[in-house]
Amino acid sequence: MPISTRFSERFGLRHPVMLAPMATVADGHLAASVTAAGGLGTVGGGYGNADWLERELTAAGPHAACGFITWSLAEQPHLLDLALAHAPAGLVLSFGDPAPFANAIRGAGIPLICQVQTLALAQSALDAGADVLVAQGAEAGGHGAARGTFALVPAVVDLVHHQSPDTLVLAAGGIADGRGLAAGLMLGADGVLVGSRFYASVESPVPAELKQRVVRTGGDQTMRTTVFDVARGLDWPQPFDARVAGNQFTDDWHGAEAELARSAPAQMARYEQAVADHDPSVAAVFTGEDADLIHEVEPVATLIERMVHDAERTLRTAAGQCTDSAT
Amino acid sequence: MPISTRFSERFGLRHPVMLAPMATVADGHLAASVTAAGGLGTVGGGYGNADWLERELTAAGPHAACGFITWSLAEQPHLLDLALAHAPAGLVLSFGDPAPFANAIRGAGIPLICQVQTLALAQSALDAGADVLVAQGAEAGGHGAARGTFALVPAVVDLVHHQSPDTLVLAAGGIADGRGLAAGLMLGADGVLVGSRFYASVESPVPAELKQRVVRTGGDQTMRTTVFDVARGLDWPQPFDARVAGNQFTDDWHGAEAELARSAPAQMARYEQAVADHDPSVAAVFTGEDADLIHEVEPVATLIERMVHDAERTLRTAAGQCTDSAT
Repeated sequence: MPISTRFSERFGLRHPVMLAPMATVADGHLAASVTAAGGLGTVGGGYGNADWLERELTAAGPHAACGFITWSLAEQPHLLDLALAHAPAGLVLSFGDPAPFANAIRGAGIPLICQVQTLALAQSALDAGADVLVAQGAEAGGHGAARGTFALVPAVVDLVHHQSPDTLVLAAGGIADGRGLAAGLMLGADGVLVGSRFYASVESPVPAELKQRVVRTGGDQTMRTTVFDVARGLDWPQPFDARVAGNQFTDDWHGAEAELARSAPAQMARYEQAVADHDPSVAAVFTGEDADLIHEVEPVATLIERMVHDAERTLRTAAGQCTDSAT
Repeated sequence: MPISTRFSERFGLRHPVMLAPMATVADGHLAASVTAAGGLGTVGGGYGNADWLERELTAAGPHAACGFITWSLAEQPHLLDLALAHAPAGLVLSFGDPAPFANAIRGAGIPLICQVQTLALAQSALDAGADVLVAQGAEAGGHGAARGTFALVPAVVDLVHHQSPDTLVLAAGGIADGRGLAAGLMLGADGVLVGSRFYASVESPVPAELKQRVVRTGGDQTMRTTVFDVARGLDWPQPFDARVAGNQFTDDWHGAEAELARSAPAQMARYEQAVADHDPSVAAVFTGEDADLIHEVEPVATLIERMVHDAERTLRTAAGQCTDSAT
């Protein structure tokens, strides 16, 4: 019943499904849940808190990966040593130049996994010796960039094929069910990276009110914006912004970022209060366009089993549509 | 060897591949070439020129569809009668409310094909009685909107499944090869609509210099913009813009659209001269992010045969990756 790929084989997984390194959302419990369900769990180190990271990597167990926001890691490079001491199943670098960290990671025998959003970033990751590229499209929830999943994945696959055929490629951005897994494999990926669907899972630490907003919203109501970064004083580099569910805060500030920056202290307080109150009308709900495909908060194991089962059924049905399928 | 779907069966096609109704690019010769190769050819009526449309529909032959820019058709509704008199294989409406034209089209016994870019537009098309929805993602070249193909297609498929299961869905945006066809089918589509790949085909009327720009550019170098519409004085409604290859003209004006509008007469002259000169550094080269996958100007029949052959091979290989494939 499982779908076997180069990714599942090389990482010793039952299923070619990886948890996205969502900052603070991908905690030890969620990572361990994905790993237990046969995928690759990931702890999302985010903006870097050593105590949190130590605790969550321990909770995640020995078979999880660890992810960093690369430009943030550059400000606290000692966190890499903390992560490597746990001998994670992989080290994910997203949003920044992986080169300064690549030797330490690969030298420790840990697979270097680079999330890339353009073909140029894919080239940089290959130059740094990445073992896995995650081609992340703009449909994805949370931080990313503008290119869509559908054409980015095969372009990255072709680049890898020509330059470094042993490097694996995962598809990310908009993948929430078996159709997405099957389509990602068709585009040439060796597996998929899933964020929003697990953000709204039972095991996710996201407050129930925010999970329910993912369930109730649709892809049309999501947008890419920098307003939550501006409000939080996070200095994200170009070309990255984040996909969120539109809410009162985006209504107030999207398109008025310079004004927001000037109002930052008051707006940061408003934002932090909303986070404390679990208020999705002001707090950021990081969800992808695949919110349309998320109808219920469900356990990780149920989600992964259904994803793989449906992908397999879809693949077999389509192969049967090839009209000389007897030959 | 062919891939049979509800779309290919209902439209009597060898292959579930449709030519995008690219304004003036999808002329009678290109449409006839796609039809002869086993797909569904389309004449792109664009902004409406009765003599051109009459000539090209005649050249396309009896098995081609006809497409209109809906908001432009509303300004010249008599063109619909001209098109319907040719009894096209389908009537494609894109970018605007299809409702005012739906009864005339369906009353003439012509399948109504609506290109949609959001779930809300998909709903409007279903309300108008569409027989086929084309879910067009932002990767597409030319006009469209912001949502990505990967999550839009399954969301439209689900909407259709619940409300009007006999309505077909085609995937569009970023589809240039067999991987894209296979992935579109995995996402639940009954076939695919292809633009950029045929824009850069031998039979396309696009000047050689512009086709070569598609071959030489990459998806990273494309962008969605309104500058060519502003320069041409075309009053496109929200939320539509167009994906093009970035060039000197976009460098000059993208982000300065209000200033461009004030300079419109001079810039329109510059633009029209570049079009006359086949100069892709100023003229619009409408290509999708799948420019990465386009390496050569090739004949339509070669492209379609390879697309279908590769899709079939990819589907069979993936079905074989399901590890209990013997059962």
